[in-house]
Amino acid sequence: MNFTQPISTLRREGDHVLILDQTVLPHRRETRALSTLEDVAHAIRSMQVRGAPLIGATAAFGVAIAMRERADDARLAEALTVLGATRPTAVNLHWALARMRARLTPLPPAERLQAAWDEATAIAADDARTCAAIGEHGLALLRTLASRRRGPLRVMTHCNAGWIATCGAGTALAPVYAAHAAGLAVDVWVSETRPRNQGLLTAWELAQAGVNHTLIADNAAGILLARGEVDVVITGADRVAANGDTANKVGTYLKALAAKDNDVPFYIAAPLSTLDFDCPDASAIPIEDRGAEEVLHIEGTAPDGQPAGVRLAPASTAAANPAFDVTPARLIAGILTEHGLFAPAALDSLREHRP
Amino acid sequence: MNFTQPISTLRREGDHVLILDQTVLPHRRETRALSTLEDVAHAIRSMQVRGAPLIGATAAFGVAIAMRERADDARLAEALTVLGATRPTAVNLHWALARMRARLTPLPPAERLQAAWDEATAIAADDARTCAAIGEHGLALLRTLASRRRGPLRVMTHCNAGWIATCGAGTALAPVYAAHAAGLAVDVWVSETRPRNQGLLTAWELAQAGVNHTLIADNAAGILLARGEVDVVITGADRVAANGDTANKVGTYLKALAAKDNDVPFYIAAPLSTLDFDCPDASAIPIEDRGAEEVLHIEGTAPDGQPAGVRLAPASTAAANPAFDVTPARLIAGILTEHGLFAPAALDSLREHRP
Repeated sequence: MNFTQPISTLRREGDHVLILDQTVLPHRRETRALSTLEDVAHAIRSMQVRGAPLIGATAAFGVAIAMRERADDARLAEALTVLGATRPTAVNLHWALARMRARLTPLPPAERLQAAWDEATAIAADDARTCAAIGEHGLALLRTLASRRRGPLRVMTHCNAGWIATCGAGTALAPVYAAHAAGLAVDVWVSETRPRNQGLLTAWELAQAGVNHTLIADNAAGILLARGEVDVVITGADRVAANGDTANKVGTYLKALAAKDNDVPFYIAAPLSTLDFDCPDASAIPIEDRGAEEVLHIEGTAPDGQPAGVRLAPASTAAANPAFDVTPARLIAGILTEHGLFAPAALDSLREHRP
Repeated sequence: MNFTQPISTLRREGDHVLILDQTVLPHRRETRALSTLEDVAHAIRSMQVRGAPLIGATAAFGVAIAMRERADDARLAEALTVLGATRPTAVNLHWALARMRARLTPLPPAERLQAAWDEATAIAADDARTCAAIGEHGLALLRTLASRRRGPLRVMTHCNAGWIATCGAGTALAPVYAAHAAGLAVDVWVSETRPRNQGLLTAWELAQAGVNHTLIADNAAGILLARGEVDVVITGADRVAANGDTANKVGTYLKALAAKDNDVPFYIAAPLSTLDFDCPDASAIPIEDRGAEEVLHIEGTAPDGQPAGVRLAPASTAAANPAFDVTPARLIAGILTEHGLFAPAALDSLREHRP
């Protein structure tokens, strides 16, 4: 599967990196230059970059940027600590930082800056290849599902696990793009994904690629599944435990429950870097709670086309905002990785392949 | 349970009725006068009045208003047809119109106007008494649940089934108000309820009444239930079939699935006028699909406090907007009515009590 990102999500330019600022998408397209360790940490925390694979690659480049100032052990440790504390749930962050630590620690400080740029670049390139492989394996799955019905295959997804969440074609959307490229008709149900509305990013991505899609409120997933209007549900993941329990964007669990209740298969698409063999099950996965303001306020465009936000409820309103939930392995038909499709109970066979 | 609405949702004033316009709540409080049959039909269609019991009472007053012009059989039939076509799912609408038809049809036209005002007023008064009775029976349920734990009882609800959805204290919120009045501590999880955000109405109601509550994105219901942070889920209903299958605001089914998956009891609170013994099960309940624009655009307040809307996605974006879903009886622990709490399988015993 050949896929070129229409706009690069993350790329090096000289001694800094350029990112596509996802906090203003889809309303505006703005690129930001990250030049300092704090720039990179802020970009991850504030979700200017988001999506588990892209967070990992961005953190890797953050280490390289931190090495510009000095590259001794203390600075390396500081960079790893600062970046590692930005977001708790996506394990790719910790995986990428561990890879950077393993590459840089044995080197003398004078060699670390170049090695850091090289390793971060390799992590990003690996991610693009991984996405392509997920797309190919996913295409085989979609072809099988499509063979059982007439008309376009109706795929439901949640949040955004497309190209803007990665350095390549995406995870959950990689099979969709592969199907579209192969001439297999797909219609995508795009769930809004409150409170941050990443579904609007998915709709924007799919529109750019010419893939048919329909936006829905998150609440509508159940009735659509019950009505028989969905053939398969595929989402990304922020962390998959050794037993297959999966943390992903809040609301994923509700879709998985409704899929199971209506005998529609529910799949997770994720690279091996999202697997955490150190977490035996969901109880060991930390779930990020984000601020109330994300629930109380919303961004969009005003009637004049300019960016604008409106307050939905008074700032004094108490709001809870867990950013992820856990889908138990028993609700998951399979986990789609760059090595193929695995039953949750078979994940252990991937342990040796972990990059 | 004594409950006085802080602002009347619906009241007669001379030869017209005044409603609280719920399309601008909670951002503004505006009362609208409905003077013609078309005014009333528009108010129901556009959700200026909403909530199954309030829709029924408003339609009843709509018949009275229609009788002002003339009160012959053709006009009565027209009023019943126009009002009956406003919204398909809430059965209270049809129940109230049937009650008006039964009262008015035998009368000579000259007596119909006064009888229509009287009957509509009686429907509204009955609804207030019904809400109070649901509150009392619900309080007994909440006391039982509260006796099993320390600390406030944590109630999750969906959409708005409070006083503004009725002519009295509400349905799902009536037990909450009864508990609050009785000194039983309750904390309410308020689900935003996209796309129309009726959860903001619930938060506004509860804030006015001094009831502790926390707003959440609809997506957060699953993780809160899984974390053990919810003791009971109570929602209203738009139509309950004879077997207990229940149509309610879209997203209710997802909460019921998550409640069941975590052994948290899920209850429906609804007056007998919401029961439809003519519907054997969910397959006979019509589900309203509303316009895409409700998903693509959102109303709130601008930074200057003025009402403002923003567009979330281009108007060209395809969006589906089923307004209700169906919660199968197997997921429902009980249905709380003005006659007490009934298991879904026991609803048939209520047939003779139907008002």
